[in-house]
Amino acid sequence: MRIALGITYSGSGYEGWQSQLSGNTIQDKLELALGKFAAQPVRTLCAGRTDAGVHGLMQVVHFDTLLVRDTASWVRGTNAFLPRDIAVQWARQVPDEFHCRGSAIARRYAYVVLESPVRPSVEAGRVGWVYRPLDGAVMQQAIEHLIGEHDFSSFRAAQCQAKSPVKTIRRIDITCSGEPGARYWRFEFEANAFLHHMIRNIMGCLVAIGQGSHTPDWLAEVVAARSRQAAAPTFPPDGLYFLGPVYEDHYGLPVRTTSYDWLP
Amino acid sequence: MRIALGITYSGSGYEGWQSQLSGNTIQDKLELALGKFAAQPVRTLCAGRTDAGVHGLMQVVHFDTLLVRDTASWVRGTNAFLPRDIAVQWARQVPDEFHCRGSAIARRYAYVVLESPVRPSVEAGRVGWVYRPLDGAVMQQAIEHLIGEHDFSSFRAAQCQAKSPVKTIRRIDITCSGEPGARYWRFEFEANAFLHHMIRNIMGCLVAIGQGSHTPDWLAEVVAARSRQAAAPTFPPDGLYFLGPVYEDHYGLPVRTTSYDWLP
Repeated sequence: MRIALGITYSGSGYEGWQSQLSGNTIQDKLELALGKFAAQPVRTLCAGRTDAGVHGLMQVVHFDTLLVRDTASWVRGTNAFLPRDIAVQWARQVPDEFHCRGSAIARRYAYVVLESPVRPSVEAGRVGWVYRPLDGAVMQQAIEHLIGEHDFSSFRAAQCQAKSPVKTIRRIDITCSGEPGARYWRFEFEANAFLHHMIRNIMGCLVAIGQGSHTPDWLAEVVAARSRQAAAPTFPPDGLYFLGPVYEDHYGLPVRTTSYDWLP
Repeated sequence: MRIALGITYSGSGYEGWQSQLSGNTIQDKLELALGKFAAQPVRTLCAGRTDAGVHGLMQVVHFDTLLVRDTASWVRGTNAFLPRDIAVQWARQVPDEFHCRGSAIARRYAYVVLESPVRPSVEAGRVGWVYRPLDGAVMQQAIEHLIGEHDFSSFRAAQCQAKSPVKTIRRIDITCSGEPGARYWRFEFEANAFLHHMIRNIMGCLVAIGQGSHTPDWLAEVVAARSRQAAAPTFPPDGLYFLGPVYEDHYGLPVRTTSYDWLP
């Protein structure tokens, strides 16, 4: 039978999602814990491989097993063997045709930025940082150039393995809380899929525009150039959260956890 | 001249505020950084010594120096030598009669609790945790027994150095966000001063009441007993935040930073 799990984690202490020889990745820790609970090796696939330092608020994985356990046992049993900054939130038996990556019709990410003269401290590793204030109105104008189907080659890392650079961004919501010079910005992205480093590269451009280094229309030129050289430098991973994949309703998978609530 | 600093920090990686031989405390890291910037030893006093694992959202320290630097330099210069999870938010020259501890007319703390069947993960080390739901109404009744001037010996750690166990709690605000079984509770405390472990011991009792193990009126008995044996076990430090001291307005010291905003 096929089991899907919802996973939350802080990416700060790990070399990203995907298994490495070092063993210090989320996938390695998860498979080690699943293997201990199942008393047999368990190999998982995930909905979205996150980079080192990127956090997961609802990663979804699946695996096939002959072991019969109720779903609450998969959650409790696996959590007992996981490090304290990784947890299984839910487990569900899914139809064999369900595929955590292939069945996802969209993905959602959030990027949180602290705007302050002083760098992050309490929230180090969990937010990006700008010391020059951002202008929300010009960033809002700029994102109109990203919504819809585009060739996003200008925001694509060299090591990206996607078959096509053409993706569809369905929405980008920009919100902020606090006063200028002392506030948090939250950028929420939804697309059918993202290229490697796509959001961090878009964030570099939006911050450059928000700080007045470029006009909003410059972003249209960046997209049209289809060249990584046209865009701004990659923004750090610290403030990036994978909010999770979106599946068709009939799978009945949970879409969020309380872990969202503390996000600015 | 006397300089006051506002400090923010994550307590997770440190053995509390107060200097230790290990050197792994907030005070040690701060004095090391101040010493490097000032090129001479700097000794500080703080408004409230926090335990290992307790976070600071507006700790205040003061020190005396003959060095003349503008206040922005004290902030930037010291931050350059501090670890990434500790930062100076502001510096102000204060009158010689100002004392960060002695001049404080009140202290404020917040305790954040995750209510969820699954332990914290993304927010590990930053929230307390209960898996059985809390009843806000009975906790609200219980805190009435704590407001005002009381002998708080029942909530006092053996190693407490306070001269008197009599303190005045001015307010306790209980708020929550989310759905039962998937929400954050925030308990905010203000008192003229707190005994060692007082909030963590009160939290142990409030959680016992909120989960139905005791009635709200049991808390009156606990207070009246004036004995640590009467109260519940000490709650963990993870969800405790020192919001900072309160001073008379004429000192003109900042009272908060953006670091508050992400708190549930």
